[in-house]
Amino acid sequence: MTDANDDGPLVVKVGGSAGIDLDAVCDDLAELWHAGTRVVLVHGGSAETNRVAEALGTPPRFVTSPSGFTSRHTDRATLEVFEMVYCGSVNKGLVERLQRRGVNALGMSGLDGRLWEGQRKASLRVVEDGRVRVLRDSWTGTVERVDAGLLEALLARGRMPVLTPPGCSVDGEAINVDGDRAAAATAAALGADTLLLLSNVPGLLAEFPDEGSLVRHVAAPELDAAMELAQGRMRIKLLGAREALAGGVRRVVLGDARGAGCVRRALAAQARASRVPA
Amino acid sequence: MTDANDDGPLVVKVGGSAGIDLDAVCDDLAELWHAGTRVVLVHGGSAETNRVAEALGTPPRFVTSPSGFTSRHTDRATLEVFEMVYCGSVNKGLVERLQRRGVNALGMSGLDGRLWEGQRKASLRVVEDGRVRVLRDSWTGTVERVDAGLLEALLARGRMPVLTPPGCSVDGEAINVDGDRAAAATAAALGADTLLLLSNVPGLLAEFPDEGSLVRHVAAPELDAAMELAQGRMRIKLLGAREALAGGVRRVVLGDARGAGCVRRALAAQARASRVPA
Repeated sequence: MTDANDDGPLVVKVGGSAGIDLDAVCDDLAELWHAGTRVVLVHGGSAETNRVAEALGTPPRFVTSPSGFTSRHTDRATLEVFEMVYCGSVNKGLVERLQRRGVNALGMSGLDGRLWEGQRKASLRVVEDGRVRVLRDSWTGTVERVDAGLLEALLARGRMPVLTPPGCSVDGEAINVDGDRAAAATAAALGADTLLLLSNVPGLLAEFPDEGSLVRHVAAPELDAAMELAQGRMRIKLLGAREALAGGVRRVVLGDARGAGCVRRALAAQARASRVPA
Repeated sequence: MTDANDDGPLVVKVGGSAGIDLDAVCDDLAELWHAGTRVVLVHGGSAETNRVAEALGTPPRFVTSPSGFTSRHTDRATLEVFEMVYCGSVNKGLVERLQRRGVNALGMSGLDGRLWEGQRKASLRVVEDGRVRVLRDSWTGTVERVDAGLLEALLARGRMPVLTPPGCSVDGEAINVDGDRAAAATAAALGADTLLLLSNVPGLLAEFPDEGSLVRHVAAPELDAAMELAQGRMRIKLLGAREALAGGVRRVVLGDARGAGCVRRALAAQARASRVPA
């Protein structure tokens, strides 16, 4: 069940923040798909999770690791709201948008079939008020293995995989994994040519939030320095970019998902070069 | 990618009503799976959907068709809550329970990959206060085609499919489909030997809710008469049973999902006969 197509697929990650135009993203992905590009879509759902969590009485809590990365604190109650929104609302909303456009999309989480497997980190070191604390009841982890064979089998059957956290711990627990880094691991496992990370900013901004300070390209050796520029979520995207490049992905594109033609524009803006356009 | 095993798989539908013990169901399914039985699990999530819908300010509305079947009125807002609970909470909760028990479960909805395809009924005739009315904005339909090849491919890869509404309209819309009837269509498409419909009652009760009035067997020709006895959801289960038998499934078992050993007990209670034990 391997695919006859030698080119790796295109892996696209689209975030779940305000302003992101999922209809525009799906318009472009359908066009690429119908033209013969094999696409794997990975998505987030953070803003919607916050909204539903508030409504259900379990407001979100964000924590910062000692190395400066910010993430959602996923206790068990949060994990369950997270699954409702990511696997329910957002995943099925994207699959329906794609099906409406004639793309036979198939949504699943990284828990399903152990697609994204890794170790659970049940306790988490965080910095609060300048002090390091340990949080228990954490349902998080990092993707260490991707079942590329399952994705290839779905692509070979004409299905576009639409993937979302959570992943699956070695012991079979649902774990919140970072979507950008999971997309990077998926791109590496599939031998993707391009990983496209779409968000609600134009890309890496040297002086966030000034969109005029967009950094157009970053060569792979300069990624560590670029990570120093990045704020918040963008730092994790660059971490994902570095992991994808280390895993053999040829280029990583950071694109803007706001407005029509966003995928096409992001892919066209960059020459095919072995670097990280940002 | 067809399976070498000549026996059809076991298709189990478990409802989402109060009292159903999903841990007990998963214990038994894991035991069957590890012993070599190929299992496809279909589930509901009605009680939890009501709870979340209330909390999110879109309380459920149930309607009765002119032929006497009761169902949820699924307008667009309801569909979206429905997807959160069925595809998010309940589906991932079951997949995680199975993964914890060493079963490589893979959850998907009938929308995914057009697994369960049928025509949408955008308007619905219902009886209210003795009068027939037409409701618009209905996102419902009936499963007409099941992609058995996709399920066989997943089984051949060692994955247990865990399936849930919604289904997919011919036009690619998400549609609420009845879980019992979708399970029946799935069992027929897979050439299943047995369809097991688990709920929170012992089976068909001649005098509902008196559990002493349990009807132990119904031969296929007597199903129409038995349907006259049935109340509420049980009528739809019997409709599903009739459809499964008409589709070639050898027996349909109505079982009680309350308590340990429920699947084993339901399957053991019935001799292998071409009838509907109830």
